[in-house]
Amino acid sequence: MTKYVGKNIPRLDGYDKATGRGLYTTDIYLPHMLHAAVLRSPYAHAKVVSIDVSEAEKMDGVVAIATKDNTTRKLFNTSATMVTTNPGAEPVLDQQIFPDVVRYIGDEVAAVAAETEEIAKEALKKIKVVYEELPAVYDPVEAMKDGAPQVQPDISPGNNLCETIVKIRLGDVDAAWKEGEVFAEHTMYLPRVKQAQLETHGAVASYNPDGRLKVYCTTQTPTPTKMILAHVFDMPSSKIQVLNPPHVGGAFGVRIGISGKAEIIAAALSIMAKRPVKYIYSRKEDFLASDTRHGGQIKCRLAAKKDGTFIALDTEAILNTGAYATFGVELLGVCGACGTAGTYRIPNIRYDGYPIYTNQQTAGAFRGFGTPQGTFAVERCVDSIAKQLGMDPLELRYKNLIQVGDDWWFPFPVTSTYLKECLEQSAESIGWKEKRGKKQTGTIRRGVGIACGTHVSNASPFCVDYDAAYMRIESDGSLHVASSIPEIGPGVTTGLLQIAAETVGVPLKTSRLVYGDTDSGPFDIGSHATRTLYAAGQLFVKMGTELKKQILEWAAKFLYVDVEKIDLVEGEIIGNCERSALCIRPMPLGKLAYEAHLRGKQFLVHGCEVPTNSLPFHADAAEVEVDMETGMVKVLKVAAAHDVGVAINPVLVEGQIEGAVLQGVGYAIREEMTYEEGKGFYNDSYHKYMLPTMDETPELDTIIIEAFDPAGPYGAKGIGECGLVPTAPAIVSAVEDATGISFYEIPLTPGRVLKRIKEVYGDDL
Amino acid sequence: MTKYVGKNIPRLDGYDKATGRGLYTTDIYLPHMLHAAVLRSPYAHAKVVSIDVSEAEKMDGVVAIATKDNTTRKLFNTSATMVTTNPGAEPVLDQQIFPDVVRYIGDEVAAVAAETEEIAKEALKKIKVVYEELPAVYDPVEAMKDGAPQVQPDISPGNNLCETIVKIRLGDVDAAWKEGEVFAEHTMYLPRVKQAQLETHGAVASYNPDGRLKVYCTTQTPTPTKMILAHVFDMPSSKIQVLNPPHVGGAFGVRIGISGKAEIIAAALSIMAKRPVKYIYSRKEDFLASDTRHGGQIKCRLAAKKDGTFIALDTEAILNTGAYATFGVELLGVCGACGTAGTYRIPNIRYDGYPIYTNQQTAGAFRGFGTPQGTFAVERCVDSIAKQLGMDPLELRYKNLIQVGDDWWFPFPVTSTYLKECLEQSAESIGWKEKRGKKQTGTIRRGVGIACGTHVSNASPFCVDYDAAYMRIESDGSLHVASSIPEIGPGVTTGLLQIAAETVGVPLKTSRLVYGDTDSGPFDIGSHATRTLYAAGQLFVKMGTELKKQILEWAAKFLYVDVEKIDLVEGEIIGNCERSALCIRPMPLGKLAYEAHLRGKQFLVHGCEVPTNSLPFHADAAEVEVDMETGMVKVLKVAAAHDVGVAINPVLVEGQIEGAVLQGVGYAIREEMTYEEGKGFYNDSYHKYMLPTMDETPELDTIIIEAFDPAGPYGAKGIGECGLVPTAPAIVSAVEDATGISFYEIPLTPGRVLKRIKEVYGDDL
Repeated sequence: MTKYVGKNIPRLDGYDKATGRGLYTTDIYLPHMLHAAVLRSPYAHAKVVSIDVSEAEKMDGVVAIATKDNTTRKLFNTSATMVTTNPGAEPVLDQQIFPDVVRYIGDEVAAVAAETEEIAKEALKKIKVVYEELPAVYDPVEAMKDGAPQVQPDISPGNNLCETIVKIRLGDVDAAWKEGEVFAEHTMYLPRVKQAQLETHGAVASYNPDGRLKVYCTTQTPTPTKMILAHVFDMPSSKIQVLNPPHVGGAFGVRIGISGKAEIIAAALSIMAKRPVKYIYSRKEDFLASDTRHGGQIKCRLAAKKDGTFIALDTEAILNTGAYATFGVELLGVCGACGTAGTYRIPNIRYDGYPIYTNQQTAGAFRGFGTPQGTFAVERCVDSIAKQLGMDPLELRYKNLIQVGDDWWFPFPVTSTYLKECLEQSAESIGWKEKRGKKQTGTIRRGVGIACGTHVSNASPFCVDYDAAYMRIESDGSLHVASSIPEIGPGVTTGLLQIAAETVGVPLKTSRLVYGDTDSGPFDIGSHATRTLYAAGQLFVKMGTELKKQILEWAAKFLYVDVEKIDLVEGEIIGNCERSALCIRPMPLGKLAYEAHLRGKQFLVHGCEVPTNSLPFHADAAEVEVDMETGMVKVLKVAAAHDVGVAINPVLVEGQIEGAVLQGVGYAIREEMTYEEGKGFYNDSYHKYMLPTMDETPELDTIIIEAFDPAGPYGAKGIGECGLVPTAPAIVSAVEDATGISFYEIPLTPGRVLKRIKEVYGDDL
Repeated sequence: MTKYVGKNIPRLDGYDKATGRGLYTTDIYLPHMLHAAVLRSPYAHAKVVSIDVSEAEKMDGVVAIATKDNTTRKLFNTSATMVTTNPGAEPVLDQQIFPDVVRYIGDEVAAVAAETEEIAKEALKKIKVVYEELPAVYDPVEAMKDGAPQVQPDISPGNNLCETIVKIRLGDVDAAWKEGEVFAEHTMYLPRVKQAQLETHGAVASYNPDGRLKVYCTTQTPTPTKMILAHVFDMPSSKIQVLNPPHVGGAFGVRIGISGKAEIIAAALSIMAKRPVKYIYSRKEDFLASDTRHGGQIKCRLAAKKDGTFIALDTEAILNTGAYATFGVELLGVCGACGTAGTYRIPNIRYDGYPIYTNQQTAGAFRGFGTPQGTFAVERCVDSIAKQLGMDPLELRYKNLIQVGDDWWFPFPVTSTYLKECLEQSAESIGWKEKRGKKQTGTIRRGVGIACGTHVSNASPFCVDYDAAYMRIESDGSLHVASSIPEIGPGVTTGLLQIAAETVGVPLKTSRLVYGDTDSGPFDIGSHATRTLYAAGQLFVKMGTELKKQILEWAAKFLYVDVEKIDLVEGEIIGNCERSALCIRPMPLGKLAYEAHLRGKQFLVHGCEVPTNSLPFHADAAEVEVDMETGMVKVLKVAAAHDVGVAINPVLVEGQIEGAVLQGVGYAIREEMTYEEGKGFYNDSYHKYMLPTMDETPELDTIIIEAFDPAGPYGAKGIGECGLVPTAPAIVSAVEDATGISFYEIPLTPGRVLKRIKEVYGDDL
């Protein structure tokens, strides 16, 4: 019997967002604020020989120009991995504000702060840079070859490996392989895709020469961003405030740590100018000079017995991490652990992940964080085994699913799984039995496919992951929670406040969560890794319980009653037994809190908590229509079934699934960053980047499985990233069902599909 | 052996203030912000019959007009007493945003929010108000008479007493009086004076229709202000954020609670307009429509034995509290307890304090809060007794001083006093022995005088007084303290951070105190009652000690050493004994904190503490020159000696004394609000209000007595208000010494002095 948990509470930031009243970074105005523009490299790889800013400096309205010649040479990593790498490991530090060697078209060369953005941009044109071009490499497989141009010779002398090969070893794959009776072996080709979040990167930095720095920005991890800034500028972390304004227009992983380089460049200029500086990425900069999803190739081999039992999985992932590491290493780890090894019971697993430097823009975190790539590879192989065995792909999956109590990844076993239910219900919704495997003819052919997967509910054990917060009762009995958790769009701050109000026993409508501000809340790792509601939720349950205890103990003393005989329910102190006077006439918490206040007491707790991790599970069933003459794939329906434990706010969970599935549709059939040597990536705008529109939006059946996870807060698991994990393999499976052609490359653009149709069928359609 | 406590650390907000870079309320700009102007009553007492805003509403750029007809009728009190009155007592609620009956010239009638301030002011002219004038009363003694016009008939039916007569009773005055051998009995006349702080009242309120309210403002008590706003607008306190920007340009008590009505009016308009609203008081509004110091009359009788021993004190204070109560009741209490009963051992005391309503602007808190008035009365009587006994006024004081352990005011005894040393050293500095009592002749006559007094180090037991805060170590070892304490000018945030860094054992330069923001810190009563450093300092010592313990315990476990054998000194974990390896090579706290962070641990504490109270003591010796032909008094020198316990930051303590003494000089010889019936107060600007300038600034000898208070943090007591308490009676005593004429009325303007010279000497000079 919950009051708020599990309820469709309208999101608390809804008014701000619906009316356009809410403040985003670009809305921030500070007195005497300057505006920044950034000069970027036209070369994919070049030494910056010299920079002459003398003409630019002379311009009226130009206040500061930052280059490699007058800013710190300190190495850093713009991603949160810089400050969250597990004990024993070291983060890769391969970036500088303005590098001596530019490593991709778009790399930062100089920045101008001026009275207006127009002046700043004009000044860029007057900066004279002498480059010495260097040989470049763009493809990760090419980059692995002997003699390839070296992107980061200081980090990876002699090769382009970003620090390390990421390895997973379970059992003995080679020995098991000999026991195999049926084998799938395929190489997958996966595109580089862009988050394309609505709000571009941005920051307003205000440096105060007494040693303080305040940065409004679009980061999805305020505390780690603060820590990175402290490192880069050699300032005490205590003197830096990083905050969202509080709204952030989407993130999807692209600003875990620094938002592009927005916070760092704005801060560097503000330090020079001693005035506030605003730097907002143009859409073009956002597309071409900030992290993407990793593309690359994955060789995947799966061995099974004739009854369908999986016995060995062998995967080699070579992903294009681009010019700088950011999350390269961690992402290859998640690709292996969650993408390939997280869904099925496979006793023998070998996984080698290669994060490879190239002279393209950096790939980093994007919703799914390696899991969609790994899942695509394994799910395609599972379908391949099913085909060879003539077995229903659904049955084959049922047979091999990971189970409660199975070891997942140290130190966490699987605490709950309802993946079978996910598969069943999504299959039923799509009409699996009636539609799958029906021979199609004619120009327009239909098919259905299914895929499943898992992800995480926070970042541990892959990296440091914890939260701290403050919780207090105001003198009128209202609940005030302060955390530096950001709200990047999912409505997680609404869900967290539901958990807090529920736990303390106070009305939601008088409660508030202050978020996204490192001055208001203590350490918080931020919003990433599908973690926020799940992990901070655990903290809030613990703190809420402690706060409630503190209140009841004070109340018992004040009221001369036994603490065991009272409770706090919806903001009222009531009797625990029916015959209590407090039942007839409860004491409002507001009255109690005020009496406490008059005696110098505020009900107040702090907490700091490392969460457990629970695997969320999910299955997508898709129905598609393929035009055999044009190669056009139309996704008719996706039935997305999710085991999220208990949905704290079902409508918000549905929103997460819907958005993610649509990104999965884009990943499957449309989205792709295409590179042209000498020019760079073509896709520098929404116009040139093919996001799915309403036209491509299929019918969506969002199914939240009734479930409960014993480790999560009120039984919840994470949902943020999961929605897109199985979408692409489900759609490709459906295309295979429709066309009889297997695809191991996405997106299934008309050109790519038509080419394969011609290869397979010639003109014999 | 302290590292920071007792050191002249340059104030941490110095850069901001010296360069003009710091933000004050008037610097705050929010998108879509409107500007407000207020229509004020031209009558001292009138019923507001009707308000027609139709013409004003039609103006381009006018967005909202607030009047009594469309705003809450809820009663409140703009001062913090509204939410800090001790349990058992109730605050006086006698104000409304726009009252139905205006009670002084300047009372609020309507407010306009418009696109520009100019439009808002223009719109005021188009508002048509019909008033029904009522009889008015201006003098508190007149107001006490039967049949006087009633200012607040709902609060005080049949009379103008603001709630209650404030009474102090000790021993039996009437019985003791019969034992008296020498008596002083005088009636003092004290002026109404103005704080005249540099920054006028102001607020920028941003109401969000989802139920949140954010108010940047000039308050000196952010949390109480938040609580008052929650009451007035019937909002949960948790949803209101009140913050300083963070700078406040002086306060001196005038904004304990709401700044005038700035926060309330800006919020009311923002709620109507659904846009941010800025309302900054003009200098004229600040002078004529915000609290002043209480003027009035005090009848004081002191009885002594022939040897000078005081035996009975009988005081009746009738002070003009003006149109609304604000702090009327509490102030009369402090006038009695600190001003009359706090300095000397007097076994029999009777005090009756009358806060009286009149139709003048409200009197409230101003540095000293009743103590200067009470002290003036008693010190004048002490001089009178000395004169009658032919005794050195200094010796008479020595004989009667309150001593350590004496009961002061429940529940606090006197914890320390160095008042004798204050008297001795100020007397020596002024040349007391050589100069006092020397017969003067001629036109220019010199004299010296002395006076002494006490005040408080916080507001308890007069009202609720406590602090709460958060303290944490960042992952680089830097200290972050968060509190909603404001910084209104004294540099107390520097002193508090000295205490925090000293206690925890970390460098001050990497430490930071976040202040003046109710979202960043929990409950804090704010900056008033000479409390902030003393009271919050006690909390910081307690929290710092707890934080240090938490760090050392974690360090001991991490380093496999005995916690008893390590210490934290200046940001390094060192060995407690000389032979420890940690002495040879200490572990930086930054490294330890980062290792803890990697393991999911932040060093973090919260605290909530009710302070004790210690009496600070002080004596001023003054030398003056009186021109017998013009009546002009020139203060040549003031030697101000203070027992502040240990001075945490001596140069900041000196600053407090210097500023306060100068306000005391103004109180003694220049400042006075003068009222003209039908027109109101004359003094509506710096031009028309005679603050002392450099010309009137005497030589200042600021003497900080070496002292130590066992209750205060690191031995400190309060200083904020004390400096002006004995200044006026010392100067008047010096004038008496120079002229041979006793004065019981201030300020000693040339006119007032010359009149008395003529009365006493006629033309026989």
